[in-house]
Amino acid sequence: MPPARPPVITLTTDYGTNDHLVGTIKGVILRILPEAQIVDICNHVLGCDILDGALTIGQAYNYFPQKTIHVVVVDPGVGTQRRPILVSAGMHYFLAPDNGVLSMVYEKADDVVVRHVTAEHYFLSPMSNTFHGRDVFAPVAAWLAKNGQGSSFGEEITDFIRFSLPKPKTADNAVRGVVLKVDNFGNLLTNFTPDHVPQLFAGDGKFKITVGGKEVSSIIQNYSQGAPGEAFAILGSSGWLEIAMNRGNAARTLGVQRGAEVVVTLG
Amino acid sequence: MPPARPPVITLTTDYGTNDHLVGTIKGVILRILPEAQIVDICNHVLGCDILDGALTIGQAYNYFPQKTIHVVVVDPGVGTQRRPILVSAGMHYFLAPDNGVLSMVYEKADDVVVRHVTAEHYFLSPMSNTFHGRDVFAPVAAWLAKNGQGSSFGEEITDFIRFSLPKPKTADNAVRGVVLKVDNFGNLLTNFTPDHVPQLFAGDGKFKITVGGKEVSSIIQNYSQGAPGEAFAILGSSGWLEIAMNRGNAARTLGVQRGAEVVVTLG
Amino acid sequence: MPPARPPVITLTTDYGTNDHLVGTIKGVILRILPEAQIVDICNHVLGCDILDGALTIGQAYNYFPQKTIHVVVVDPGVGTQRRPILVSAGMHYFLAPDNGVLSMVYEKADDVVVRHVTAEHYFLSPMSNTFHGRDVFAPVAAWLAKNGQGSSFGEEITDFIRFSLPKPKTADNAVRGVVLKVDNFGNLLTNFTPDHVPQLFAGDGKFKITVGGKEVSSIIQNYSQGAPGEAFAILGSSGWLEIAMNRGNAARTLGVQRGAEVVVTLG
Repeated sequence: MPPARPPVITLTTDYGTNDHLVGTIKGVILRILPEAQIVDICNHVLGCDILDGALTIGQAYNYFPQKTIHVVVVDPGVGTQRRPILVSAGMHYFLAPDNGVLSMVYEKADDVVVRHVTAEHYFLSPMSNTFHGRDVFAPVAAWLAKNGQGSSFGEEITDFIRFSLPKPKTADNAVRGVVLKVDNFGNLLTNFTPDHVPQLFAGDGKFKITVGGKEVSSIIQNYSQGAPGEAFAILGSSGWLEIAMNRGNAARTLGVQRGAEVVVTLG
Repeated sequence: MPPARPPVITLTTDYGTNDHLVGTIKGVILRILPEAQIVDICNHVLGCDILDGALTIGQAYNYFPQKTIHVVVVDPGVGTQRRPILVSAGMHYFLAPDNGVLSMVYEKADDVVVRHVTAEHYFLSPMSNTFHGRDVFAPVAAWLAKNGQGSSFGEEITDFIRFSLPKPKTADNAVRGVVLKVDNFGNLLTNFTPDHVPQLFAGDGKFKITVGGKEVSSIIQNYSQGAPGEAFAILGSSGWLEIAMNRGNAARTLGVQRGAEVVVTLG
Repeated sequence: MPPARPPVITLTTDYGTNDHLVGTIKGVILRILPEAQIVDICNHVLGCDILDGALTIGQAYNYFPQKTIHVVVVDPGVGTQRRPILVSAGMHYFLAPDNGVLSMVYEKADDVVVRHVTAEHYFLSPMSNTFHGRDVFAPVAAWLAKNGQGSSFGEEITDFIRFSLPKPKTADNAVRGVVLKVDNFGNLLTNFTPDHVPQLFAGDGKFKITVGGKEVSSIIQNYSQGAPGEAFAILGSSGWLEIAMNRGNAARTLGVQRGAEVVVTLG
């Protein structure tokens, strides 16, 4: 086995996989650090969608080894004055544009340090105005993995951009939330956690969930318990309530997409 | 060069690539075994489709180095009592739910040993009911690669689930088979091998193939020999007869999908 | 860190990711060279589209480390007499069918040596007529990375196939070009470089661009400067003029696809 742990660098982008972009980023990293372990977390973040990017990296990063460097590029402001930042949080590093795409990381970690990356001698030259994944974030990630001195990339800042993830709101007997994501199986990930609606998990059946104009009234433990053709609630793997179907596509059946309202009525 | 061969772990799943799932699995593996060579065989197996998963891993595994660990997660029964299994077969290892997804491996290898993975101390904790790719199969794969003692993961079983891949059936002058898969080019992979229809390969042209209500009457050696706009038969790279077109899409042209009947009439 | 740089092998193919093909290729490489760094540049080149393949590898290769081996398989002539070739150019290696898919590499590099790969003992046996990515190019790439003697794979040839990338043409006050590619964001990559239309970059606004029956009259420095709903021109990251929109999809809005004419009228 190799004598040292190879450095891990992950990619979370909205570049898609229909052209060379993601491959080119990996080339830039390997030219600096040929032994890097490069892992795609997801290159199909919804285009320019900062919330989707925030949810993607926020659900994944903590499963990686300590000191992993996560490159997160959802960057509608590429080429403007928006700052590239280097964040250390929860024993991980992150490189991203300063547009809030790390907001879920900021929520989960309690030791966040953010630096404005200004050490331009690490950037590719000439530098484009449209592809900083290649020209800025990839080389900085590789040099950070190689040299390991975060402070050499720029000064700490405190006015970085962050937003709060949407939280359910309670009024009378109802709690109103939202569909955060539709996964590959058509399951609807909502922003409810058990803390928001402990009664759902009490097992006495005194609730209903309304989404897409339809009612969901059962909560089950695994997908196979679901009756054919019927939507149900289930606790998903990231700690959020999901609306799902057993071997069916809940999003299609309910006619619901990301952003749809989800109302839990209790009692 | 590194002093030892890095362990290879492959992934075959129906998770898709639109969210963090596959990336998170890789993180779990790398946290245990940072030098792992992780390879995606396919993360676009048709959702919950055990036959499609079986065909995917069955065509690929034998091209990997000996002792490769293949993680195969097509798992509609996740969270139920269905067993996670560790299989050794043909000098390879496989981790999968016990639902038949390794049936093609069982057909090809003659030294199959199946264990019920019960060593829960290797699983992630807390363990979800919906994402055992992350919580069960990934950590077991990494610990197996690291420690190499299959017997420490659970007892051998013999009542594992297997199914027979669909085989062509002969009646009178006709042999009836099926489209197993439509590939990226629209080629139709059928379940005929040369053994089922040796006359097709005899070169005397005394056959016709009926699929999607249309007739195919030529068998050729390479795609370029095909006349424009005409479907033909060809021996595919996994040993199955294909129906294909030269720079055309046979599935679309013939209006045929996976599962369609294919009839070879002889003489 | 490992004592030596692991060899890098890249893949650029039209195989897609819905089946085992790309995974199987990686297995073949790893069986020969387990420590290879295998990187996907793109496996979604348009099916059998040699120009799209040429543009993909041509934009990416130069960002990889020297001595990287690039496997480029867009191969409608697989199984015919078309030659497999091994090319060294610009301190990189390339393995591809001799059909012009390396034409952009030939344009960019000035030290091109092309060999006809005839050393069949490196090929897999039995060899299919339909999947030379697995049977020819993957094992040759791995053995080349392992042994490093390009000359042992076959004799140099000079009659290899190359084509010229489409270039804009000037007539009167107009320069006529074409859309080479539509990227993941719907941006239109054209074949104009600043050299073809220096007046566009002069900043005096005396030009119009016509594409899809619509006029584009502004050129800006970054995507965010674009007014909502309005298409604009911008210099893209590969040195070509792009037609794009700020958080919009130019291809969809303009009703334009790859191959569409783009006319720049000056003065």
